[in-house]
Amino acid sequence: MKVNGTNYLTIWMENNKVKMIEQNLLPFDFKIITSENYLQTCEAISTMVVRGAGAIGAAAGFAMAQAAIEANENNYESFLQKARKDIEATRPTARNLFAATELVYQAALSGKQEAIIAAQAVADKDKSDSKKIGELGNELIKDGFRIETHCNAGWLAFVDHGTALAPIYLAHQHGKNIFVYVDETRPRSQGARLTAWELKNENVPHAIIPDNAGAHLMSKGLIDMLIVGADRIAANGDVANKIGTLEKAIAARFYNIPFYVAAPLSTFDFNCESGSQIPIEERDQDEVLFQTGINKEGKPEKVMVASPGSEAINPAFDVTPAGLITGIITEKGIIRPNSAEILKLQ
Amino acid sequence: MKVNGTNYLTIWMENNKVKMIEQNLLPFDFKIITSENYLQTCEAISTMVVRGAGAIGAAAGFAMAQAAIEANENNYESFLQKARKDIEATRPTARNLFAATELVYQAALSGKQEAIIAAQAVADKDKSDSKKIGELGNELIKDGFRIETHCNAGWLAFVDHGTALAPIYLAHQHGKNIFVYVDETRPRSQGARLTAWELKNENVPHAIIPDNAGAHLMSKGLIDMLIVGADRIAANGDVANKIGTLEKAIAARFYNIPFYVAAPLSTFDFNCESGSQIPIEERDQDEVLFQTGINKEGKPEKVMVASPGSEAINPAFDVTPAGLITGIITEKGIIRPNSAEILKLQ
Repeated sequence: MKVNGTNYLTIWMENNKVKMIEQNLLPFDFKIITSENYLQTCEAISTMVVRGAGAIGAAAGFAMAQAAIEANENNYESFLQKARKDIEATRPTARNLFAATELVYQAALSGKQEAIIAAQAVADKDKSDSKKIGELGNELIKDGFRIETHCNAGWLAFVDHGTALAPIYLAHQHGKNIFVYVDETRPRSQGARLTAWELKNENVPHAIIPDNAGAHLMSKGLIDMLIVGADRIAANGDVANKIGTLEKAIAARFYNIPFYVAAPLSTFDFNCESGSQIPIEERDQDEVLFQTGINKEGKPEKVMVASPGSEAINPAFDVTPAGLITGIITEKGIIRPNSAEILKLQ
Repeated sequence: MKVNGTNYLTIWMENNKVKMIEQNLLPFDFKIITSENYLQTCEAISTMVVRGAGAIGAAAGFAMAQAAIEANENNYESFLQKARKDIEATRPTARNLFAATELVYQAALSGKQEAIIAAQAVADKDKSDSKKIGELGNELIKDGFRIETHCNAGWLAFVDHGTALAPIYLAHQHGKNIFVYVDETRPRSQGARLTAWELKNENVPHAIIPDNAGAHLMSKGLIDMLIVGADRIAANGDVANKIGTLEKAIAARFYNIPFYVAAPLSTFDFNCESGSQIPIEERDQDEVLFQTGINKEGKPEKVMVASPGSEAINPAFDVTPAGLITGIITEKGIIRPNSAEILKLQ
């Protein structure tokens, strides 16, 4: 990814410290923050300094490696176990978090250096998987396609490249004439803030739309395909992703528009039979009732955007049944979302 | 309607002036504004001081009556014609606006007093139609029902009572234990701002949800029915309503949940064969890119909520095909949305 002409990763480890793009400040301010220890990295995950399935996975792996570095010889294993619990308690839905934590935890049992190597491998694999997903997904995109996407499954949601946006970037680089409709993605507006910002950095033609406008554009024949990311994919192909994904999938089916999910194998939860078993994170109602933006002085300001005294409900994810998904773009190929095809990936 | 214990109408005429609740300030400030002449009333419609199908109709009727009052004897008819064009240019989608303008224009040809009487009759009929819709719709609501609604089709969208919310108020007054899920309704958030405010004034249990959360709640079996309003209904039963209505209707059909539209006959456009002929208003992209709320000092503040330099698309309405609608609650009865039943109403 290139930010103002400079190459970046979303998250990386440097001298046992974790460096991350502070995504809560985007798109209004670009800043790299440093996490000194595993608890600070946990805090960065739960406060969404770092967010998105792959980036959360990389962060969790690095946090586990930091815990191994911090652990004393005399209570090494119990410290690791506590750290693992802390890391797993940050956010419940993204599969990548648990996969990375497990992998680095097992490596850490062999030693600190092994933990660091394993965590780096998780991050490197996230990057190379994303690149491969971009290449495979690009083949689905025809010249002239108008593509709708939800939330942010771009560079910022992974270590680099992204999943849903990786094919779009490659199609654009290959000279295909494409246009992206970016769902705003309330309540946290990752579409309007992060995806639009990424697409602008990559010079991909796009427009932000209210989440409400998706089906309307589909009904007018203005959408050729949808590509979204995933936070967890069950063994039967049900997909948990950002709240609102389900509505888009239902509308896409109603209008017979291809609906693709792009995700690496690390997002698959082979032990999870179906989407109904995926825990859905409920976030603070203030994310719905208040909104932070930039005021006319260019300063961040939090304003109340709902009727005072009314409460809100704020589920962060929903589950799209496999039957509504045209295909899943993985680093190992584009598969149909069913148990047989998913089993072959394992 | 009762605001802080006092009875109000959304809009009324007093000594040839039009008085209106300033809806752009709600729910943070409650203020009545006065329009001195027909052009000011036009301005109030286009800037959404007054909004909602029925209230727009009443405003248009009053504006036409104001024009008749302002017209000189020597160019009376041409002045009326110009005024009619100005009024009809304020907002293109709501049928009630054109119905009211036509009716009061015809009356004005007979004289100023006739125009005033006709405009008052439009407003009075809007109120009594809404009351009847409430009574008929109430019969559909069972004890324990959890109802989702989109945008605001309450008192504030009509002269009083409302359409989608009128049955809800009556059900609540009759002691039924109901709960309302209020779609936030981006980009102007009429759900979070107006519907939530109305429901709180009426003590109806409710929660605001992001527009993205509707299908998720349906998938969990948490929604028993949906009721929405309408801005224009074609002769075949297609319904234009606030952007996002179509997505809810598609999702409701997917989960087999009853989807009702509540609207008076003044919303029906019998000359409009199908929804594809209904003009859809495109509003300023700044409604998506910026949001106004109340800052911590309690002052209104406009903040940018999207990535700077990206553009937005902002269609204000969409068209829900008749086939997705369970029934239309009118003042003359609950009908199936098809040409035969609609013709009988005419």
